[in-house]
Amino acid sequence: MNRRHRQRDLEERASIEELDALLIGNLTNVRYLCGFTGSSGALALCRGQWAFFTDGRYTKQAEMQVRGASIHIGSGPPTILAAGWIAERGKRNTARVGVEAEYTTLAIIDRIRSELRSLAPRCRYRLVPTTAIVEQLRVRKDASEVAQIRKAVRLASGVFPSLLKSIHSGIAENEVAAELEYLARRAGAERMSFETIVASGPNSALPHARPTRRKIGRGFVVLDYGVILGGYCSDMTRTIWVGRANKRAARLYSAVLEAQLAGIDAVRAGVEAQAVDAAARDVLRKYKLDKYFTHSLGHGVGLEIHEAPRLAKGQTQRLEAGMVVTIEPGVYIPGSGGVRIEDMVLVTENGCKVLTPTPKELIVR
Amino acid sequence: MNRRHRQRDLEERASIEELDALLIGNLTNVRYLCGFTGSSGALALCRGQWAFFTDGRYTKQAEMQVRGASIHIGSGPPTILAAGWIAERGKRNTARVGVEAEYTTLAIIDRIRSELRSLAPRCRYRLVPTTAIVEQLRVRKDASEVAQIRKAVRLASGVFPSLLKSIHSGIAENEVAAELEYLARRAGAERMSFETIVASGPNSALPHARPTRRKIGRGFVVLDYGVILGGYCSDMTRTIWVGRANKRAARLYSAVLEAQLAGIDAVRAGVEAQAVDAAARDVLRKYKLDKYFTHSLGHGVGLEIHEAPRLAKGQTQRLEAGMVVTIEPGVYIPGSGGVRIEDMVLVTENGCKVLTPTPKELIVR
Repeated sequence: MNRRHRQRDLEERASIEELDALLIGNLTNVRYLCGFTGSSGALALCRGQWAFFTDGRYTKQAEMQVRGASIHIGSGPPTILAAGWIAERGKRNTARVGVEAEYTTLAIIDRIRSELRSLAPRCRYRLVPTTAIVEQLRVRKDASEVAQIRKAVRLASGVFPSLLKSIHSGIAENEVAAELEYLARRAGAERMSFETIVASGPNSALPHARPTRRKIGRGFVVLDYGVILGGYCSDMTRTIWVGRANKRAARLYSAVLEAQLAGIDAVRAGVEAQAVDAAARDVLRKYKLDKYFTHSLGHGVGLEIHEAPRLAKGQTQRLEAGMVVTIEPGVYIPGSGGVRIEDMVLVTENGCKVLTPTPKELIVR
Repeated sequence: MNRRHRQRDLEERASIEELDALLIGNLTNVRYLCGFTGSSGALALCRGQWAFFTDGRYTKQAEMQVRGASIHIGSGPPTILAAGWIAERGKRNTARVGVEAEYTTLAIIDRIRSELRSLAPRCRYRLVPTTAIVEQLRVRKDASEVAQIRKAVRLASGVFPSLLKSIHSGIAENEVAAELEYLARRAGAERMSFETIVASGPNSALPHARPTRRKIGRGFVVLDYGVILGGYCSDMTRTIWVGRANKRAARLYSAVLEAQLAGIDAVRAGVEAQAVDAAARDVLRKYKLDKYFTHSLGHGVGLEIHEAPRLAKGQTQRLEAGMVVTIEPGVYIPGSGGVRIEDMVLVTENGCKVLTPTPKELIVR
């Protein structure tokens, strides 16, 4: 894990934005930059020096995990401790201190401001909101991250065959979800990466359905789930058919699969995110199903289940090698049923590698 | 569920703070005030009128759930839609618009400001950060909330006997956690209210241990878990002993239980939060164990697992009838083991009602 490399990249961004100091309070970003996984911590960068702040509960853990930063234990919110440290290092008349715009609340900024004022009353600090300053680094995964994501993906795919065995006509959606989460835990998952979706029959037409007490009967069952392993998320969807098969259902499924394969085919470094979405959408248009594809094609996955980039209409961000994204077209016929098929892929210079090993032929049970 | 009553209470707070409008973006607060449970929504109050904002995915759900507010479907962040609605109603030269200080980030406030400016360029808006303006209402639970909390507590306690049966020498902590979560799901839990703790042997001395692959052997096992039902959280801890019993362990357990009962005894409307913490701590001091009680005694529970009030040293907030809090003293002997016992209680005028029905005698398995 090359924490030092990540820290250098961020130092460069900070210098481009002419920041004298930078405060990182978003715990996912803190973890990414220094390795700390606890529930309370903050990082500060000030003129090339890195410092990490947490409270007494995490003394031992910080010593074991934190790399590339001095460790400071104190009481109170770690972000405020970090502001105090920056104030003590204030040497100039004015200093530009970067804060994370998407993370820092009005309540926190207020406390940061008074901490700086009270500890360094003669220095005029300017708090500068930064936009996705760490998140834009996290978009391209390094080798250790890809390895960890692969492990999470394999764990989730690994429990799929046993999950399938548990599904039969008459079992409730929430029983299937319980079964799945039990299998994932037993296989070593830290936890699920989002609320598991088990959506049967008409519920399969709701992209964000929660498992209900509905008994599974003849029809589609959408299974959308992921696990967290070593902090990294996986995300996959398979749709199966329960009961006597039916030509119309098979045609619907095969259209979505064709769209999914077209999406995967369109992935390559340099391509605009919206072009990948369009490639899948065009296939569904051919079958007059595009109006039932009501969400975007995919999203980045990493330490968080939803990260940049978004593969959606209007997204002109270009894909880069090292991005990890989902490709998940779906078709939802209101009141009837729906199909979604989702893999995770790693963007490469010339295309992509599909990370999810689970087969995609329609399974009938 | 008296949504209207909650909205009136908030209107009164807004009027005390001389706000012409109020923007609520924290989804837990949105749910509390209007009933919406989806993942994207915001509420606005402007001169006695309430409006709710979400996107197209939630049209149906909003119609079914939202009470006491007009429903507006749009695209983009709902908080910005809400700001636009407020701007369109701007009638005066200046208007004070309240925003939630603990929720609103610098990125959001920036967008709110430009939305107000572009839609109502002639009105001078002042964005006023409000502190816990909704959270302070949520502290006292109404009858429907207490009923829902009781259901969540009963569900969690209900699976405890089966959970106990799964625990034996040789089973791994994470297998017990898997078993527990499976039982909870099967019993109808929406999900766990926080990351389950199953901490055995020396791990039981870490208050925030995560389940590991450690095989349970002779010693204490701390089981700390909760479920969510109807949006409301439960939280309980029991500590059991595995293997041949031991007088020292029994004495440690009985000291913690005595402290827990003393804490419960001290709960009553009008008492300062710190006095309840002190009542439990004093018992442990008698046994020279207070230095091993390294966290605070308890916290409020409701739509969130950690809410006000905090039962801790220095907390002068007075308890009020209708608050629901945990009472959870613990003793942690580093490298050896720990004991924690936790119930949820409902504060009443003359004392409290213990909500958790699970017995507290030391169980040896």
